[in-house]
Amino acid sequence: MGVIASQNSRSLAALSETEIIQRVVAALADACPPFPAGPGGDCAIFENHAEQKYRVSSIDSVILARHFDLTCSGANAGRKLVQRNLSDLAAAGATPSDALLSFIAGSDIDSDWLEDFAHGAGRAAASVGLKIVGGDIARGTPGTFSATLAIQGHSSRVLTRHTCQVGDIIFVTGKLGGAIYGHHLNFIARLKEGQWLCGQNAVTSCTDLSDGLAKDLPGLIGNRLNARLDLSVLPISEDAHALAKADGKPAVDHALQDGEDYELLFTASPAQADLIAATFKKSFPQTPLSQIGKVEAGKGEVFSLSDNQPIAPGGFSHFG
Amino acid sequence: MGVIASQNSRSLAALSETEIIQRVVAALADACPPFPAGPGGDCAIFENHAEQKYRVSSIDSVILARHFDLTCSGANAGRKLVQRNLSDLAAAGATPSDALLSFIAGSDIDSDWLEDFAHGAGRAAASVGLKIVGGDIARGTPGTFSATLAIQGHSSRVLTRHTCQVGDIIFVTGKLGGAIYGHHLNFIARLKEGQWLCGQNAVTSCTDLSDGLAKDLPGLIGNRLNARLDLSVLPISEDAHALAKADGKPAVDHALQDGEDYELLFTASPAQADLIAATFKKSFPQTPLSQIGKVEAGKGEVFSLSDNQPIAPGGFSHFG
Repeated sequence: MGVIASQNSRSLAALSETEIIQRVVAALADACPPFPAGPGGDCAIFENHAEQKYRVSSIDSVILARHFDLTCSGANAGRKLVQRNLSDLAAAGATPSDALLSFIAGSDIDSDWLEDFAHGAGRAAASVGLKIVGGDIARGTPGTFSATLAIQGHSSRVLTRHTCQVGDIIFVTGKLGGAIYGHHLNFIARLKEGQWLCGQNAVTSCTDLSDGLAKDLPGLIGNRLNARLDLSVLPISEDAHALAKADGKPAVDHALQDGEDYELLFTASPAQADLIAATFKKSFPQTPLSQIGKVEAGKGEVFSLSDNQPIAPGGFSHFG
Repeated sequence: MGVIASQNSRSLAALSETEIIQRVVAALADACPPFPAGPGGDCAIFENHAEQKYRVSSIDSVILARHFDLTCSGANAGRKLVQRNLSDLAAAGATPSDALLSFIAGSDIDSDWLEDFAHGAGRAAASVGLKIVGGDIARGTPGTFSATLAIQGHSSRVLTRHTCQVGDIIFVTGKLGGAIYGHHLNFIARLKEGQWLCGQNAVTSCTDLSDGLAKDLPGLIGNRLNARLDLSVLPISEDAHALAKADGKPAVDHALQDGEDYELLFTASPAQADLIAATFKKSFPQTPLSQIGKVEAGKGEVFSLSDNQPIAPGGFSHFG
């Protein structure tokens, strides 16, 4: 068995991202603790008994030709790396503290571009008090570049996926779809909003949208609940409408399936949902908030409210 | 300015690794705290006031065709990733706690090989009580594979580089050179030894050997001291002798310049050096320990004791 798949073996392209992760987690065996201290959420979460708070951590990368292209400025790519990681912390309602930064770069990468990347990453980190405390740089294949950030933060309460209940109301921040037209490079993670949500006991679960609502919503509710979405009130971005005009696909499909929204998707208990919505809007008047559906008994499926049709989890797939 | 260097700009190949890191650290600016809480050591180190101990963190990768080749088993590559990171913690005398694991893999990577990688990483982690609490997998260029581990640990005292003094005695564990013949894949990080050294007040500084003694020793002493090495007592591995026979280069040069020894290089105050050596050997009878030189006033240079000739820092260079 070699590193590269042969005709007699299966490459990663033959598996879904979920299958790959399940196999890796199973193989890590005893080294891998169960959720929420281990994989399965936006962050890993540990209780710090001495300080009576939680430490959270997450890791994410940006890769040339995947998360940005050859014409992207270093500063924008560096910003994106930090904001992607901050979005994971936002979903946990955490405050960022420190991070480690690792580069794997071909020796043909422009040295000024790399410096500009560090400028962009540094400014994004400084804007939220995040310290980049260490790192590593290693040589990769010519023409390739990736940067990985491992981030640490803390929070006073655990806010995760898989903790909503039947009847909970589903909310989403911002406007969805069409991120490829620019939002994927200039978004700002909803850190303050996530911290505020974390402080509300009526908020029952939260995640950030990175692969698209139709894929991330099943990830939020888990395997033992369904979600029913009112597609008529879905917040559709201007860019999703523009993209729909360009490719003929309905704008609502872009809002459901496009990746890289980096908005917060959360649930609130029904008795408190109106109050949560009203106080959120008062606290964050610039941040759109939409009530888009509710949680029902089920098995991890999403349905449309108007016609009871299933909505397939056709969001972004990393492999295959 | 594009990602890839043009004829009118400088690629990373035109800079030394030290220059690249200096430029990145300068560009990160306020986001990057000073050593030892920031870059410059084997780990970043923070004081945890509530628990009266230190939290340490480090990040390191393994890259296909750089740290292992196409014929390497997944388990060996996974083991190496974890042991490389443990070696950084060993240099700080720290106890590992948790880590995040990130993959960037071409879709043609063998899925069984990846699973085997996770087996190897998981076993190495479990052997020292390290928990792998989260991670990420993203698609990279076909034919490429890298894995990055960001590790956290704790220690009761700060053991770093740059803290030795004139007159201190220089020690090294194990035997040096020729790691390419196998040691680079089957070494075990000197975690217990590092933790023991951290508990000895007479031990004044420590690092691990990853780029070769001739390059890592200047990194240990910093810019305001020199080191004088007794090359006649340098512990030379069997593999360094074998490699010398094969390529005609003196074995001592392999011991000085070959990378991936993953041994501990440390200094002890002269009055306590013999006691440190004696008690170390009693505590770790299986681990070779050699007294190889001493620290002098200077400016970051290394000399040979016998002939006063300078020893160039000709160890492994990551770029150029």
